[in-house]
Amino acid sequence: MNFHDLIQTRQSVRKYTSKPVEQEKLIQCLDAARLAPSASNSQPWSFIVVNENDLLQKVGKACQGPMRSFNNFVPTAPVILVMLIEKPKILTEMGGRIKKKEYPLIDIGIAAEHFCLQAAELGLGTCMLGWFNEKEIKLMLNIPENRTIGLLITLGYAPENYLQRRKVRKPMDKTVKWNGY
Amino acid sequence: MNFHDLIQTRQSVRKYTSKPVEQEKLIQCLDAARLAPSASNSQPWSFIVVNENDLLQKVGKACQGPMRSFNNFVPTAPVILVMLIEKPKILTEMGGRIKKKEYPLIDIGIAAEHFCLQAAELGLGTCMLGWFNEKEIKLMLNIPENRTIGLLITLGYAPENYLQRRKVRKPMDKTVKWNGY
Repeated sequence: MNFHDLIQTRQSVRKYTSKPVEQEKLIQCLDAARLAPSASNSQPWSFIVVNENDLLQKVGKACQGPMRSFNNFVPTAPVILVMLIEKPKILTEMGGRIKKKEYPLIDIGIAAEHFCLQAAELGLGTCMLGWFNEKEIKLMLNIPENRTIGLLITLGYAPENYLQRRKVRKPMDKTVKWNGY
Repeated sequence: MNFHDLIQTRQSVRKYTSKPVEQEKLIQCLDAARLAPSASNSQPWSFIVVNENDLLQKVGKACQGPMRSFNNFVPTAPVILVMLIEKPKILTEMGGRIKKKEYPLIDIGIAAEHFCLQAAELGLGTCMLGWFNEKEIKLMLNIPENRTIGLLITLGYAPENYLQRRKVRKPMDKTVKWNGY
């Protein structure tokens, strides 16, 4: 599969079968995330894999909106990845402060997409979650007070009849400008 | 090339030959970035391609550190991509404010890596730049006051003898934890 096809294949999967994720494939996805580039190679992250049943239920519920208004599929995923922001190198942090850029968030995005693209290549589905009860999840997973959760990602097999959606994006001429705004 | 090999191939390229980037390949890279996923599909970005000689010199110089202490390769790149943060959808912005997450930075990271991975597949080199004189570049490219530059990326052909470096990353057991911190 070339990269264009891989991009087209990756989509947010919001329904999972009970089929477990093979350990070997999970490790391949984690490895893709681990190998991601980051500002000054500071790798400002750590990843918590949640795959124990009780914990999956609890973490999944902490991702649902108020009154279970959305993300109700999350507790059905056989794996939830919690991507934590760890302190970057001092030089990167200083640069970020001077430039008012939160490099670790950019880096977390890159690593998350590595994870999702690798999963897509292996026939697995993922969904990045930006909405979650951070305080509750930190308690559940014994995450130190001073760490921040960047993103959560669900991982598992989509049902066979799960629809491959066409990507809806702004057209190229609304997105790209040449040599000036 | 499978995704693992593509990840290994992509590296920061800090030296470019004078060979121009084919328009078709440039469009493929831009398309990969355009197709990137984002929070609530809000696509909070626009991309400015800089490929005019004079402008490349100016923008390139605005990426060098104090007293040209680093990033001196930038003015030699035949293309510089400027990734701007555009306002996300109102719902995404509200969610981000409530959760204190700057989703657009995560999204910019994802789109930037799509660009770089597509370039690597096509035999092109890239380097993401987080350090630049934002004020100067905004003036040079007529970027409206209220837009923010997320990242710059250089694009071009590395010299034939450019070294493919081994990735230096924290080992898996320092990066991944299971069911708790």
